[in-house]
Amino acid sequence: MTLSTRIERIPPAEVRLAEDNAALLHAMGIVVVHLLAPPGAGKTSLMLRTVESIAGRLRPAIVQGSLSASTDPSPLDELDLPSVQVSTGGQPYLDANMLRQALDELPLADVDLVLVEEIGTLTSPAGRSIGAKLRVVIASLPQGEDCPLRYPEPFAHADAIVLNKLDLLPHLEFDRTRFRQAVRRLNANAPIFELSCRSGEGLEPWWTWLLEQAQGQPL
Amino acid sequence: MTLSTRIERIPPAEVRLAEDNAALLHAMGIVVVHLLAPPGAGKTSLMLRTVESIAGRLRPAIVQGSLSASTDPSPLDELDLPSVQVSTGGQPYLDANMLRQALDELPLADVDLVLVEEIGTLTSPAGRSIGAKLRVVIASLPQGEDCPLRYPEPFAHADAIVLNKLDLLPHLEFDRTRFRQAVRRLNANAPIFELSCRSGEGLEPWWTWLLEQAQGQPL
Repeated sequence: MTLSTRIERIPPAEVRLAEDNAALLHAMGIVVVHLLAPPGAGKTSLMLRTVESIAGRLRPAIVQGSLSASTDPSPLDELDLPSVQVSTGGQPYLDANMLRQALDELPLADVDLVLVEEIGTLTSPAGRSIGAKLRVVIASLPQGEDCPLRYPEPFAHADAIVLNKLDLLPHLEFDRTRFRQAVRRLNANAPIFELSCRSGEGLEPWWTWLLEQAQGQPL
Repeated sequence: MTLSTRIERIPPAEVRLAEDNAALLHAMGIVVVHLLAPPGAGKTSLMLRTVESIAGRLRPAIVQGSLSASTDPSPLDELDLPSVQVSTGGQPYLDANMLRQALDELPLADVDLVLVEEIGTLTSPAGRSIGAKLRVVIASLPQGEDCPLRYPEPFAHADAIVLNKLDLLPHLEFDRTRFRQAVRRLNANAPIFELSCRSGEGLEPWWTWLLEQAQGQPL
């Protein structure tokens, strides 16, 4: 037996923090959902709709990313829920260190599910993780059916894809089959939820999937 | 008289290249318009509509930014125009060095106006310049009337703002006055063009403004 150890390779701090977040959350039975979307695809609406639906079954909390501290109030601030706003100081994405800080501010013993609202962009660094169990990409009909092929990276790494604003279908030229084919070129397995946060259409399968994912963890 | 010089401060290469681009373009009487927008706001449609309108009066060229070289074909590729595609290799914005390279590929002696399509995002680095004379931000109704306040930086630095997809107004809750007020909190002077690339409504003032800007240069 030797007490001497040689360290050959040290992971970047960002990777270590993401792993630590994932381990902490797993140990506490908390599911974090990292929501990525371009501006205006409906992150906030989806969070509102999701929280109101699951409130009786899971105890949700919210982390909202914003580019600067001087952002206008969001409807999410009105919810009676544990909530943390994280200003990235201009960095166009949340990182694992920011999530860690946010988790420190939340009453984790009373939380089952944390919805993390990313800065609105589809161009943040490739393949990164903040330690969330689930990555969900939200697109919407006005972004066009070729949105996945123009911004492939987030779609390729998603655990689920939401296509929002289905209520606008009569008013746009949007081919749902082509959207699904575009997603499948990048991601063979992630479920695709076509829905409208405005009309409520299609929300049920999304809620069901989210509950199943959350209940795979010890509650 | 002394021949000895002490250099106290060297500008970053990116700043130098942006200044060089601006000087080259000014000397040649070429106006570059840098178009910034989130995914799906209608950059491509606006470029198509603009090029078809100004074709008899100015000689346009196009630079298209994309995240990777394997992007799907764009309707812009079909145009009978000098055109360069620039892959940023994952970097979520074009920089002055990339514009310089693109300019080297264009027949500049036969060009009056270069439309540069940025990567689709509103979160690229603050206050940067690639050396373009005009920065134009394109938003669209589905992004919501509070889009400028959530992504203030590009709106604050814009020379003009286009609000596209006006044809969707009957189908959305969108308050045009609140959008204009949001822009004015960030930018006192930039003209705001409300239009629809689909219906053609409101395009005329945009074309007129662009021609005026271009003709301020020696043609």
